[in-house]
Amino acid sequence: MPTPATLQALRAFVEARNWDQFHTPENLAKSISIEAAELLELYQWGSTPDQDRVEEELADVVTYCIHLANKLGVDLDDIVMRKLESTEQKYPVELARGRMTKYTELQQHSEEEE
Amino acid sequence: MPTPATLQALRAFVEARNWDQFHTPENLAKSISIEAAELLELYQWGSTPDQDRVEEELADVVTYCIHLANKLGVDLDDIVMRKLESTEQKYPVELARGRMTKYTELQQHSEEEE
Amino acid sequence: MPTPATLQALRAFVEARNWDQFHTPENLAKSISIEAAELLELYQWGSTPDQDRVEEELADVVTYCIHLANKLGVDLDDIVMRKLESTEQKYPVELARGRMTKYTELQQHSEEEE
Amino acid sequence: MPTPATLQALRAFVEARNWDQFHTPENLAKSISIEAAELLELYQWGSTPDQDRVEEELADVVTYCIHLANKLGVDLDDIVMRKLESTEQKYPVELARGRMTKYTELQQHSEEEE
Repeated sequence: MPTPATLQALRAFVEARNWDQFHTPENLAKSISIEAAELLELYQWGSTPDQDRVEEELADVVTYCIHLANKLGVDLDDIVMRKLESTEQKYPVELARGRMTKYTELQQHSEEEE
Repeated sequence: MPTPATLQALRAFVEARNWDQFHTPENLAKSISIEAAELLELYQWGSTPDQDRVEEELADVVTYCIHLANKLGVDLDDIVMRKLESTEQKYPVELARGRMTKYTELQQHSEEEE
Repeated sequence: MPTPATLQALRAFVEARNWDQFHTPENLAKSISIEAAELLELYQWGSTPDQDRVEEELADVVTYCIHLANKLGVDLDDIVMRKLESTEQKYPVELARGRMTKYTELQQHSEEEE
Repeated sequence: MPTPATLQALRAFVEARNWDQFHTPENLAKSISIEAAELLELYQWGSTPDQDRVEEELADVVTYCIHLANKLGVDLDDIVMRKLESTEQKYPVELARGRMTKYTELQQHSEEEE
């Protein structure tokens, strides 16, 4: 991911504006945080936001994620799948089922229950 | 995006742990911000971080973005492409070329230069 | 704010470690976001976190805010009070009472109700 | 911190608008992250932002920090000083001087150098 068409469109957008000079990994990392907070703002007071606005802000986050993956020379599906494998190890089904305990406390939590 | 295989793997991960109950849109929006900040932390002091760690943190951000898109019933490529169209309008090539001025100030900036 | 004793202790901490070189306004701004997300993480799944941990993470956010104010040569009480005056203008009591509508939509919201 | 006058003014602002109902610790934690990102946005592309805008965004972050401390029944100076004591332990001067290595890696880093 994304599809070649999306990736191509995003690259052309940046190239036409000569913005590649601003797209350092650090600036893209900042941008992802900034856009993530704009998404969060829609839920600031616990309300149910308009779906169109959620989609727009989510799109902004993902757009910068694609730019960063592009810079790093990695494919998003690849890194998501690789990370999933390590997360599966950290959160074994039998321990993690039905609760959101951080993996660093999961084993201990489990032992206390016995 | 993502590929059907990635989407399927993420869904199976959540289902096996019965975590769907925690994956409200609001909790996912918080999670995206939290993971985005962990990515940003790698650049906190301006250093050049280890690529493996950047990939892992980026993967975490994108994973929650996929979960949220899934909840919303939208495809990430679709919303990214739709947002790109509106961003292209806000940042016309002739005005935005080579500078990072926010679109709300771009027209004014341009007029001042004339 | 803070008290002279707190400010003095924070400055001495940084000086003893020769960290002033890393405390650029930009790095401090990143640090505030990073620590804010660690605070948010305590509420990631909607749980009621341990008060000690909330205090610690809040302390981290405020510590970096003090460092940044120090760099900027401003007093936090001063800027908070100055900002409050402008916020009071944006959110007149008669319009804002009992609702969290963004000020840009507040006037319109009010007119629709009449 | 803050001064009694600032605290009083902030409380009166909230009370007049009947906003206390929205100021749950979780909503305040979200608000701190959201405002921190608005501060970060001023440094998004590495530029040197206008000081007035930095002061305004920093004021927003600190305002919500004061509201949260108020909810928790703690004083910001107290928790900052308490946290500083534990940070001093994690970053001993002889190991941390002149470098920004995370405390979890600091001891190891030190041993490798010998």
